[in-house]
Parts: sequence; C-alpha cells; structure tokens
Amino acid sequence: MTFDAVDVIRTKRNRGELSDAQIDWTIDAYTKGVIADEQMSALAMAILLNGMTRREVARWTDAMLRSGERMDWSGLSRPTTDKHSTGGVGDKITLPLAPTVAACGAAVPQLSGRGLGHTGGTLDKLESIPGWRASLSNEEMLSVLDRAGAVVCAAGSGLAPADRKLYALRDVTGTVESIPLIASSIMSKKIAEGTGALVLDVKAGSGAFMKSVEDARELARTMVDIGTDHGVKTVALLTAMDTPLGRTVGNALEVDESVEVLAGGGPEDIVELTVALAREMLAAAGLTGAKDPADALRDGSAMDAWRSMISAQGGDPDAPLPVAKETHEVLATESGVLARLDAYGVGVAAWRLGAGRARKEDPVVHAAGIVLHAKPGDTVRAGQPLMTLHADDLARFERALAALEGAFAVSSAAVFPGPLLIDRIA
Amino acid sequence: MTFDAVDVIRTKRNRGELSDAQIDWTIDAYTKGVIADEQMSALAMAILLNGMTRREVARWTDAMLRSGERMDWSGLSRPTTDKHSTGGVGDKITLPLAPTVAACGAAVPQLSGRGLGHTGGTLDKLESIPGWRASLSNEEMLSVLDRAGAVVCAAGSGLAPADRKLYALRDVTGTVESIPLIASSIMSKKIAEGTGALVLDVKAGSGAFMKSVEDARELARTMVDIGTDHGVKTVALLTAMDTPLGRTVGNALEVDESVEVLAGGGPEDIVELTVALAREMLAAAGLTGAKDPADALRDGSAMDAWRSMISAQGGDPDAPLPVAKETHEVLATESGVLARLDAYGVGVAAWRLGAGRARKEDPVVHAAGIVLHAKPGDTVRAGQPLMTLHADDLARFERALAALEGAFAVSSAAVFPGPLLIDRIA
Repeated sequence: MTFDAVDVIRTKRNRGELSDAQIDWTIDAYTKGVIADEQMSALAMAILLNGMTRREVARWTDAMLRSGERMDWSGLSRPTTDKHSTGGVGDKITLPLAPTVAACGAAVPQLSGRGLGHTGGTLDKLESIPGWRASLSNEEMLSVLDRAGAVVCAAGSGLAPADRKLYALRDVTGTVESIPLIASSIMSKKIAEGTGALVLDVKAGSGAFMKSVEDARELARTMVDIGTDHGVKTVALLTAMDTPLGRTVGNALEVDESVEVLAGGGPEDIVELTVALAREMLAAAGLTGAKDPADALRDGSAMDAWRSMISAQGGDPDAPLPVAKETHEVLATESGVLARLDAYGVGVAAWRLGAGRARKEDPVVHAAGIVLHAKPGDTVRAGQPLMTLHADDLARFERALAALEGAFAVSSAAVFPGPLLIDRIA
Repeated sequence: MTFDAVDVIRTKRNRGELSDAQIDWTIDAYTKGVIADEQMSALAMAILLNGMTRREVARWTDAMLRSGERMDWSGLSRPTTDKHSTGGVGDKITLPLAPTVAACGAAVPQLSGRGLGHTGGTLDKLESIPGWRASLSNEEMLSVLDRAGAVVCAAGSGLAPADRKLYALRDVTGTVESIPLIASSIMSKKIAEGTGALVLDVKAGSGAFMKSVEDARELARTMVDIGTDHGVKTVALLTAMDTPLGRTVGNALEVDESVEVLAGGGPEDIVELTVALAREMLAAAGLTGAKDPADALRDGSAMDAWRSMISAQGGDPDAPLPVAKETHEVLATESGVLARLDAYGVGVAAWRLGAGRARKEDPVVHAAGIVLHAKPGDTVRAGQPLMTLHADDLARFERALAALEGAFAVSSAAVFPGPLLIDRIA
C-alpha cells in the first residue's frame, strides 16, 4: 500500500494513531529514500511530542526489524541470552558479565556500540586491548560464540538499516529523547541480533539518559512489552546511575577493573550488578539449574571464558593496556563523608580527558579517564586524593576540572547512598 | 553569535522561549544552509506543537524580513495600501479590489502568489488573460503602479528568501498549519513588499485554511500585531468561507465575474466584500475624504483602472478568455431551498477539473472550473441545474463529481445563511 508522507506526519501531529500499514510503509519508504530526511525528522518530532501507543511502538519496531536481516543461532547447542544497558558512567558491566554467563552455560551473542557524549561504549573499552577486533563476519561471530560462549562485536550494516539511518537523523534533529523511538531503536537491533532472551539494564539518574525513575520505568516497560510481543523472553532491571559504577571511568581503566572482577575481586557495586544481571540472563534463557554466577567469578571459570573470548577476537589478554602520559590528582579540601559524586559531571570530565568522542568519526584516547578513590558514603580526610585524572595531554585537565566543579561534595553528616537495584520489570 | 541547531530545537521542543539572538541566528543559518532542512523541519514541528510567544513571532518575522530586500514606494505621490487574503474558494476579490482602490486615489503594490491545493491563486487567474505577465522587475512594477495605480505581480526572489525556503519545506513536512509560522510567512512578505497600510482578509470555514472562527481570529490578531510592530497600519476582517464566494470557481471564469463586478454588476457577496475591503484599505492609508469604492464601481473609474492595470502588464482586456471544451451539468434531484454548498467540496472539484495544481511546477487549465447556478438560500426545483462543471477533458468529470458528493444539500425548511463579514480586528 502507498501513503503520502505528509498525511502520515499530519496524523501523528494531530495526535492520531498510525495504522500498521502506514507504519510499514513509512519505515520502508524512509529506508529507500522515498521519505526524505526532512519529512522523517518532522515525524520524529511529532512522535516525541505526541507519543505512540503500545501497538504503534511494536509495529514500528517490527518494521525496522524487517528492514534488514535477523540473525539465527538455532544451530548452537546452548540457549542464547543477552543484556543491554541504556548507558551510564563507568558502566563496564558487559565485560565481566558476558564471560560469566558463558561460564554458566549460556551463549551470549552481543552486538554492541561505541560511546557518544558522556557515556562510554563497550567496543571502545575492548579496543584498548591490543589486537582485539570489533568487526566480525557472521561466520566469525558464530565461531567465537561456539568456542568461547560469548562474543561482543559491532553490529553489521545488514541489521535494522532503518534504525541506523533514523538514529543518525535523530542525533542531529533534537529527537533523541523519545521513549517510543529509544525503545524501538534498541529493541529492533536486539531482536535482529537473534538472542532468545534479553535482560535490560535501564538506568535512572544524572549520568543516565533517563534522569527520573518514572521515565526509566516507562522505557523499561515499553521495551519489555516489545520483546515479549516478538517472542524474546525479556526482563528489565531498573538501576541507579547517580554516581559512577565502580572506581574507574575510561576505556583501558575500565578493562583493568573488569579483569579484577573476573579474578574474584573488584568493587562491590560492579560485582553486585554483574551477578544480578547474570542470574536474570540465565533464568530468562531457562537455565535454572546452572552454575551460580558468583561461583563462576570465584572459581576462575569466568576468567577462562574472558581469556577465550578476547583471544578468539584477536586480542591478547596478557598484553599491558595503554597508560596515560599525564595524571592529575583531585584532593579533598575538607574532612567528612563523601556525600555526592555526580555521574554526569564525572562522565563529562572523562569525556573531556579524551575517553569519549563528540562526533561519531572521532577517535577515543584509550588510556584517558578517571580513577575514583572514594565513593559516596566513604570517609575522607582533607588533603586525601578523591580521584586521579588520566590524560595524554596536560591541556585536557583544565576543562575536565571545570566539569567536576560542583560534581562532588563532602559532608559532616551521615550519608546513606540509595540502593543500586531499584526495581525489576518482567 | 553562534548557536547549536540541536540546542535551538531542544529549547522549543521543551516548551522554552527562543531568544532574539537564537532566532536571528536560526533564520540566517537556515538561509545559508548551515542549518539543514531536516533540522529546520524538526524545529518547525516543535513550533507547530508548542507555539511561540508574541515576541518570538515578531522577531522570527523580522529575521525573515531582514534575510532579503525591502521595497520602497516613498517616491510615489499616492499612499500605498494592500490587501492579503488567507485564501478561499472563488476568492477573486483582488481582481475588482485593486483597481477600485486605485480609482479612489491610493496605490496598490500587490505581490501575489499561485494557487496550491483546493484554493486558487490570483496570478493563475490573471494569467488566463492573453498576454498578461506576472513577472515584473522592480522598475516595471514602479512604472505600472505609477501609471495604473495598482500592480499585481509575482514576488521576486530577493524578498524574504528565508520564507521562500521555509515555506517550501513546510509544504512537504506537514508543518504548514501553525499560526506563528503562517503569520510570520505572510507578514514577512507583505512588510518586505513595502506597503504602508495592509488589510487582511482572514477566512474561516470549510474552504479556508482556518476551519474555525477562533483559529482565524488568533491568526488575524497575530498578523495585526506583527504589522503594527513593524510600523505598517494593519487591520483584519474575519470573513466566512463555508460556501464559495460569488458564482464562479476557476481561473478564466473568475476573471469574467470580476469584470462584471467592475462593470457595476456581479454577485452581491463579491460586491459587498470588495467594497468593505476597499473602504478599509483607503482608511488604513489615511485617505478619509476619498471617493467611495461603491461609486468607483458604478461610475466606470474602477473599470478604467482595471483596463489600465491589465494593459500595463501586457494583457489585452478585450481579448476573449479561454473557454473549456467540455461542460457537465449537475442537476437538483429535489425541490426546496439550497441549504448548503460546501466551499471545500467545490474547491476540490474545481481543482480536479484542472483549475488547481497538486505540485508547484504543474500548469493549471485556465478554462477549467465551476459555475454555480444557485447559492445557499436560493430556491431550487428538481431537475434545475445547480452548477456547470467546465473542463478540457471528459475524464476529469468523474473525480470532480466524487468530490461534490455530499457537498450540497437541498432542504424543505427555511435557510438563513450566516453573515459574510464576521468581525473586524484592528
């Protein structure tokens, strides 16, 4: 069926509901260039401001999914399960998580992305490992998954091409922050990836895309609905992102910390979130009698899976990671308890140190980032280092320090950080 | 000052107010291509859905005005005054109006447009006169105005180029129906045209752009405010557009009817509106002791001005107008009073007969259109012709008749058509 682009835009502009046929035509016509960018951006703004019903979001996702190929792992002997995080500061969870879940018996086929803005990207982090390759053919992906039980790589251009085109458009037209568009973008890629089960880590707080728990809950609910409607067993955890996760922010620094966790140590919050997500992933995959993820971290089997996964993609798990040429310490100016360490401020500072990129085509500085010596609730003494900034270039420190202005506070009163795990939506 | 396009879009998307500097930068950057079409269309949709304050609309208009030249008629011995109609079905008022006002002592420098969709364009109507030229240089325009007292021609590309670019974009992105964008588009062109006084004919009803009187009133108020803020004496009449104006719809047919009015005859509603608008135009120009427009229509001086205006632009006022090859009569199926004759239905039917165009680059069929034999309130007998359709091609009648389905109704009860002049806003 053929429609008129202006009619479709007007329908949504006037708070109407788009029909299934209109949605199918819109996505197909946009992918083929029949609907122009300026028409799609007007429609995206109308969707952002006027919303979409559950049916519309499901169909929109489905149409984007059908714009490309859908991967198929039915030949594997293990059930597939994956995780997607909406992105945060210091969020390196995929690195310990994927091999941990593999060590417990599931297969993790994760297509991941690069960072943009103040949040990091899993591929950027892994690329700080000498030799590691993000781009794999479908055959290579299957082979890594078969050997190591987990693969983390870049999505090929054949998956949800409509989403790829729309995402780039939304980025330059102020139409990113729409729950139906975010949910359909994430879910079209994750469903196309072919995973049988999916656990969503939907973050809320200053360092997250969703600042409020209510928005995060709505996004989680929308995505769980889409996954369920498409036959993917989907569960979401709402988690806090007011403060950075763990004690490192920056690519190589986060790989270091992840290896600590895989060695049975590492910061408590990273271990807590890794284990919680791993248990959800295994349960969603139907592996109820499997090894417990906490055990996999303790007994070295998660580390073995990590080494196998990194090696299978050309990386050397024993190679030294890049180290920054310059460091700068930020000291506490008073004694007390660290009351606040703002994820957004720390994220922007790390970005300015070189850990992130402003434009898709920019490179990242793998060694750049921040090591946190105190987290909210920790006692600090005046003169003690609160964090160490890492960069290859002294000139970067000034703008990073400006981003940290007001991002942390020491208090004389007692501090009770909120829980990391806020809610579960199934 | 330089801004980021995405920040500007986000401000309006989040219901914020754009600063003067943001608006100036946006219009300038869009004219120069620094802001891409897909960004401007997203902003236009955000403006459509979230509105603009009076200050924003005034500045937006001003920035578009400053994107090009502003004409200057200060060398003329007569005061300038113009009219703009928001467009309707059978709205040929400019044709008798401009020479009538010229005959009463004012100068009418009217830059006009072509029709798009179901409403006709003044230039299309005049182009049915053999030899008549719509495109004039500024020098030619001045010379016609000086000789005939009125000129109706196409706007040159130097006037409000930002509006030209934005209007074309809005047309394909479902962002036409925004009162701030409509008002600033009309007023930037009319102020650039250099008229000292302006009377707006803002139409409300099924055949108008604004379906409700409330919307029409808001548009009128917004435009009067903009004109006043720019030192142009501006007045608006709200007029009914539920039924076509006069008894003809279509280019050459409407020229015929206009000439009847200029000869002292013609349909009552056309005469009423022409005289009302002419009086407003003269009063706005400060010509309080001038000849009354009704007298100018009666005494032949308006007709003289018409002939002079048409000849000065290469037209032959005595040449026969194009006549359609085919006609088709629509008959009344019952006797009674014509209760309704829907302007939109008739407009679409005339459009389908060839009087209008679907795309800017399409030609129009000058002879095509509809002659109305009865208007609401008229008594009709079963079997009597209600209207005659004119086209060059028999195949056009079927689709035109489909547009007329339900567009008229004969009633046995008494019918009281509402007033043509609804309100005046100054």
